[in-house]
Amino acid sequence: MKIDGVPYQSIWRGADGSVRVIDQSRLPFEFATVELARVEDAARAISSMMVRGAPLIGATAAYGLALGVREDPSDTAIESAAAMLAGTRPTAHNLAWALSRMRGTLVGVPLSARAEAAFSEAAAICAEDVEQCRAIGVHGASILRRLALAAPGRPLNILTHCNAGWLACVDWGTALAPVYRAHDDGIPVHVWVDETIPRNQGASLTAFELAAHGVAHTVIADNLGGHLMQRGRVDVAIVGSDRTTASGDVCNKIGTYLKALAAYDNGVPFYAALPLSTIDWSITRGEQIPIEQRPESELTHVTGQIETGGLATVRVVPIASRALNLAFDVTPARLVTGLITERGICEASAQGLRQLYPGLGSAG
Amino acid sequence: MKIDGVPYQSIWRGADGSVRVIDQSRLPFEFATVELARVEDAARAISSMMVRGAPLIGATAAYGLALGVREDPSDTAIESAAAMLAGTRPTAHNLAWALSRMRGTLVGVPLSARAEAAFSEAAAICAEDVEQCRAIGVHGASILRRLALAAPGRPLNILTHCNAGWLACVDWGTALAPVYRAHDDGIPVHVWVDETIPRNQGASLTAFELAAHGVAHTVIADNLGGHLMQRGRVDVAIVGSDRTTASGDVCNKIGTYLKALAAYDNGVPFYAALPLSTIDWSITRGEQIPIEQRPESELTHVTGQIETGGLATVRVVPIASRALNLAFDVTPARLVTGLITERGICEASAQGLRQLYPGLGSAG
Repeated sequence: MKIDGVPYQSIWRGADGSVRVIDQSRLPFEFATVELARVEDAARAISSMMVRGAPLIGATAAYGLALGVREDPSDTAIESAAAMLAGTRPTAHNLAWALSRMRGTLVGVPLSARAEAAFSEAAAICAEDVEQCRAIGVHGASILRRLALAAPGRPLNILTHCNAGWLACVDWGTALAPVYRAHDDGIPVHVWVDETIPRNQGASLTAFELAAHGVAHTVIADNLGGHLMQRGRVDVAIVGSDRTTASGDVCNKIGTYLKALAAYDNGVPFYAALPLSTIDWSITRGEQIPIEQRPESELTHVTGQIETGGLATVRVVPIASRALNLAFDVTPARLVTGLITERGICEASAQGLRQLYPGLGSAG
Repeated sequence: MKIDGVPYQSIWRGADGSVRVIDQSRLPFEFATVELARVEDAARAISSMMVRGAPLIGATAAYGLALGVREDPSDTAIESAAAMLAGTRPTAHNLAWALSRMRGTLVGVPLSARAEAAFSEAAAICAEDVEQCRAIGVHGASILRRLALAAPGRPLNILTHCNAGWLACVDWGTALAPVYRAHDDGIPVHVWVDETIPRNQGASLTAFELAAHGVAHTVIADNLGGHLMQRGRVDVAIVGSDRTTASGDVCNKIGTYLKALAAYDNGVPFYAALPLSTIDWSITRGEQIPIEQRPESELTHVTGQIETGGLATVRVVPIASRALNLAFDVTPARLVTGLITERGICEASAQGLRQLYPGLGSAG
């Protein structure tokens, strides 16, 4: 996608072979790209949330492992690099998925060829992610097209939570891919952007992305979506997923569950858009997913732009008060209208997911 | 209630007859009291949200009218002062209720006696509010006492949204009155304080109040409450009400509806605590309540304390993006376990409310 007319991806290799990312912790007010030179840089980029979003976490971990292999291709070093990367964030499933895939690729490769193989596999993961997100966009846009027919003469109102746009992936996004596709196809769309506290990823990343691509949008408090649904001002909600259970429960940024409840209560379709790499086939109940607890400071302090243009951080919670910062919640499959995947749209259920894999026999 | 050991109410008359309030827009980091010298000051204090909370809005409007009467006791002046005050905020029912009561009191009073009558009636409104909130605390604490018996050996976890504490009233509070009463009675309580964006009234006012009174509490993102309820970490939710319909629908700070949905989905009791003056007997459907739209800047900018101690305001939404700031939503009666009023606890329904008025015949 484009920023100021220049096409970007969220992670890429420079002409000199360096791995570069956008420092998302400084958006929307400062646009800076950063080189990840070593595996430690990649781990820090993930844990500090310079990069975030399940697919991008996976892609960064893949390149991180490649950076580690370039320095030391031994099995011991790979194991230690993988452990370091795996420990950065507990909830996103793509992290474990990408590391497992990378390690599988390197098994049996001679030490001297491992770095090249690792960079090549990381690039393949990125390329596949782009293609998966593009496909999610095509499938999801078919839903938006159908809904737009029922809302002639006005833009289709889509609510989204957090950032599941191209900044969360390599390109296109998951929840926002259908929006970009519909917009590019000429369907008038308007996005209600949940501010998404803590870390304001809706206001700072989703709004930034949509503005840069020219998509109409309005930032709203996380508290507002239910009221808008009650008043018929939301046609559809689409969110991403950091981990999806084999039974279709969706683990996404904290607050997603509340929007799903409101959508259900008001008959608003609620979709989760996700590459199938977010599915944790080993888990059938959302309660089994580990929920990341992050620093209090992400809630007690807010960073933004002061009038003179620089950034400043202000405290918004009294010093005498504690805060609890959990990053994700689980939306039970019963509240999810459907899952939008690169293989098509399915019901949020074990059976629905199975139907995306026609080659598999019935699990009975 | 006390601040640093000194008892305060949220509005009071000084020894010199002046009307004073706490500037709540500067809490929790600066504690300042302000004199309201003229009716215009009172109107500005309400519209700028220097004072807020349905009962305190009513009390401030009452004193505001008295200030106007002191300057000009004519019928024309009273009408114009009442109109100015009535136009400050559209949703809170106590505003209209207090103005109507004040005007009723002044009918037939000779011009020379009107100022004294007005101040006396405003003082009566405040005194009654204190007594009502105290009674709400007693009734609500009976619920907390019963729930605490089912949670032996640990504090009772109470979730609240926005600020319906003593700062929203004259003293005690509505939603927080039962908490203070239970705490003072030795029942161990812990409050999950929704940050409550826009304006952060949970983090900045509720947390401040609870800390000042020594009640255990934790500030959480507005997005977190649903997850905590899913995990059994909330025993009961109590909120206030800015306007209650005759059928028990509750209009409260934006986001209340989402918490009520989550409570319902998880079998967590959800109460609204309110003086009966918040009931708009003319309205039976929540959709009829006007929802106040406030400035975008309350969402696009956040004010807090910088490290060196002063206050600063930072922008958190990109300049290219618009924002929508609606201040209230309506929680349908079907999601409300009960209403805690000064006359006792009732079902959130027309019938439940009628039972609080045993002198009235059945409406059939």
